Amino acid sequence: MSQGNYFEDFSLGQKIRHAVPRTVHHGDISLYIALTGERRAHFSSGEFAKGIGQRGVVVPDLLTFHIVFGKTVPDISFNAVANLGYADVQFLAPVYPGDTLRSETEVVGLRQTSSGKSGIVYVKSVGINQREEVVLSFYRWVLVNKKRLDVEVPTLVPELPSVAKVANAGYDFSKFESLQWATASGRRLADYSEGQRIVHGEGMTLEESDHMLATRLYQNTAKVHFDAHQMKDSRFGKRLVYGGHVISLAHSLAYRGLENAMVMGAWNGGSHANPTFAGDTLYALSEVVETQELSDRVGALRLKLYAIKNRVPDRSLVVKPSGKFDPSVVLELDYWSLIPR
Amino acid sequence: MSQGNYFEDFSLGQKIRHAVPRTVHHGDISLYIALTGERRAHFSSGEFAKGIGQRGVVVPDLLTFHIVFGKTVPDISFNAVANLGYADVQFLAPVYPGDTLRSETEVVGLRQTSSGKSGIVYVKSVGINQREEVVLSFYRWVLVNKKRLDVEVPTLVPELPSVAKVANAGYDFSKFESLQWATASGRRLADYSEGQRIVHGEGMTLEESDHMLATRLYQNTAKVHFDAHQMKDSRFGKRLVYGGHVISLAHSLAYRGLENAMVMGAWNGGSHANPTFAGDTLYALSEVVETQELSDRVGALRLKLYAIKNRVPDRSLVVKPSGKFDPSVVLELDYWSLIPR
Amino acid sequence: MSQGNYFEDFSLGQKIRHAVPRTVHHGDISLYIALTGERRAHFSSGEFAKGIGQRGVVVPDLLTFHIVFGKTVPDISFNAVANLGYADVQFLAPVYPGDTLRSETEVVGLRQTSSGKSGIVYVKSVGINQREEVVLSFYRWVLVNKKRLDVEVPTLVPELPSVAKVANAGYDFSKFESLQWATASGRRLADYSEGQRIVHGEGMTLEESDHMLATRLYQNTAKVHFDAHQMKDSRFGKRLVYGGHVISLAHSLAYRGLENAMVMGAWNGGSHANPTFAGDTLYALSEVVETQELSDRVGALRLKLYAIKNRVPDRSLVVKPSGKFDPSVVLELDYWSLIPR
Repeated sequence: MSQGNYFEDFSLGQKIRHAVPRTVHHGDISLYIALTGERRAHFSSGEFAKGIGQRGVVVPDLLTFHIVFGKTVPDISFNAVANLGYADVQFLAPVYPGDTLRSETEVVGLRQTSSGKSGIVYVKSVGINQREEVVLSFYRWVLVNKKRLDVEVPTLVPELPSVAKVANAGYDFSKFESLQWATASGRRLADYSEGQRIVHGEGMTLEESDHMLATRLYQNTAKVHFDAHQMKDSRFGKRLVYGGHVISLAHSLAYRGLENAMVMGAWNGGSHANPTFAGDTLYALSEVVETQELSDRVGALRLKLYAIKNRVPDRSLVVKPSGKFDPSVVLELDYWSLIPR
Repeated sequence: MSQGNYFEDFSLGQKIRHAVPRTVHHGDISLYIALTGERRAHFSSGEFAKGIGQRGVVVPDLLTFHIVFGKTVPDISFNAVANLGYADVQFLAPVYPGDTLRSETEVVGLRQTSSGKSGIVYVKSVGINQREEVVLSFYRWVLVNKKRLDVEVPTLVPELPSVAKVANAGYDFSKFESLQWATASGRRLADYSEGQRIVHGEGMTLEESDHMLATRLYQNTAKVHFDAHQMKDSRFGKRLVYGGHVISLAHSLAYRGLENAMVMGAWNGGSHANPTFAGDTLYALSEVVETQELSDRVGALRLKLYAIKNRVPDRSLVVKPSGKFDPSVVLELDYWSLIPR
Repeated sequence: MSQGNYFEDFSLGQKIRHAVPRTVHHGDISLYIALTGERRAHFSSGEFAKGIGQRGVVVPDLLTFHIVFGKTVPDISFNAVANLGYADVQFLAPVYPGDTLRSETEVVGLRQTSSGKSGIVYVKSVGINQREEVVLSFYRWVLVNKKRLDVEVPTLVPELPSVAKVANAGYDFSKFESLQWATASGRRLADYSEGQRIVHGEGMTLEESDHMLATRLYQNTAKVHFDAHQMKDSRFGKRLVYGGHVISLAHSLAYRGLENAMVMGAWNGGSHANPTFAGDTLYALSEVVETQELSDRVGALRLKLYAIKNRVPDRSLVVKPSGKFDPSVVLELDYWSLIPR
């Protein structure tokens, strides 16, 4: 039986078409709402979504991300020690209930670690719908163990953009005046300013059941999330929460104050700064990095989203007190959000 | 960031249109079934629902209630200390998968407590579908903290009906003979008599994951249900189960013996008699208060539904042994149910 | 209130039409995926399902089984001490989202145990869709307590086939070449050989919330799964996981290595060898018993599926070290799977 790929199994330029395609349905969105508390209006209301130029309820961008990502796990990160980072994550087209998603990956970089026992695999993955449209594209790099220590792997570290291009994938905010009651906020691009910090004021405690339900929904099979028996002997002694679920929870907790920053445009980068476990309570803190005008009615807000555990954050939180992430910081996500102007 | 309204922020006659509208889908019903064990036949089978005059599977009345209620939380009860009661809750029209619900509220009463540190807010809330039909209407009153103790709030305590009007919102039981195999019971209005008590015989233990999944599904954001970290310092030292989930569990546990009392018509009143926590096991006990003939084929059964925790109830249970609810009683719900005659 | 049937309440030839019919929706499949991690391609992708001759996404065979089974519980096994076995379980037609299922049972055997305090009830149950097609048919036998010890029950032990007939219920694998990327495997019937053992390499830890969500989704009301308060005084002192959920988890964990053995054809027999509890971690081990050619393109693979708890199985595991199941073995399921030739 295939036990997944080890570092020496990857080669530069290698292309993988991942199993298993997945048709996304309304039921997946219901579950996503139940798992995260998501309440952005175009994921929740078909009427609202039509009001901003969509066909109906849109599949939450992060649900799409997790499904596309999950499919890459058995081939890319089944034996991963850590998911080190993301770059240039682009959300290129809305996904609707009924669409079928599949994933493809190309290996774009490889670098053995100094110990010689593991290596970093850099990949570009894409999510593709049943009309062969790329709906999502991202780079990530993971630390993967070697099995055969004697195998040499040539090194190539790719140059990845530190800021992703953000574009409007078909959102129309021209009727937003008449719809803004639905989001509980009239805030637009101009209401935010660089350096501003937003404390969102909600907290969510994570249970084992919650993160495992979420991770199985995405058909992500990484052992570290599911197998308490074997994780007893691991570094942390217990199951680890899928980092993507932390992103979803943080993004959902960041609703208040960013009600109209509804569309995920792109991620510039992201770090799972510290591990998250069942029992942890998460809070969200956002920082405005930059504002940009995309068109007459559409703006882009560049934000840093922090997930903080077991500590109610305030505006003055020092994320990296001594060059390293504070132990309470479990996520830093630098992303672009589309917002009405 | 808005931290929700405090007592002094409300004013008599104030009207609020709540965010975020929500399109209900089959997936929400699947989740509701998984969370509560609900098995009334018109929520479960489209064929059965058609047999009683519906377009197809009906959204469970209580799921509609929770969604409509959940939307009012950020504006009305985010800072509530307790949800004190309900009156005149009317279920006015069936909701179907695909319908989009929103909520509106009017403040109909205000009364400062004697301590001067909090006050009771009386509201009338309605749930409205995408055709602007009111599907649900209810009064509730909540105890809300004051933030600015020096602000005076004028008092008006509304007169609320102690018995709700119950009407038939479009159910046709004329073909019920041929359908009753589907409910496991042939009991009709005439099979019940005033004063009769029904012990339903099933129990359900609640987990943290269950009530949080349910409460997030309803997009209800009240802190007390989710944030174990901050709840450590609260009165109970832990998360509190959303009272509405207790109503749903009790109503679901009350299936056997009331199989054909399938449609929630109206609530006359309800009290969350004691708090419920994860780990508690709930049982249901029903008491027939009154029977009423609505039309040729449709009757109304007035019931008191009790949820009892950690104690298997029998018919002789004294709900209020000394004028106060017994600590094992967590819910008293006085409601009307439609049932074939 | 009916407290379910006791052994003396059953009679030979008795026929029961069970409440409550259930329309299956996409949302049920989403939940099934979230609860089990299921990823067989025709349950996951509508496009793939069409490629093998189906109308669209197929309802997972085991989800159908659990729903049909769950409906029989209130009448057959509400007072069961144990579910002793299954025989001749035939999956006769695919079920699609939107189909409505109901269950019927005939009592085909009765045998009082030597103690005189309980008896074994043998039933044949069928699942029927809204077009009156039988989609599932199975025998099972359960140990049920007597209430009135003085009542005599005549004995008849039915002869049940030890191997079920397996047929192709409409799957077309003629285009499988172009689809096999979607399953991550090109393995076909000829790639398996009798006696071969497959260690699937994934593990899943079970939480109370997970098995209760699953069991409620199937509207299965058996007390032992839900009522921790009363189970404190039972033999095990705690809730017992529904054996069907163990089958689903084991089957889902057995994906890798059996990616194309996608259709459940029939079960020859099955035993819940030992009980499973929340906190247990399950692993799967499969053994090839027999291979059979059904038609030009369709083969049948007879497998024994073992679920092992709290112990990582290897190929040499002795399932019955001394004639009895090893305590780590919780399931032995002997079944036929359809697979491309």
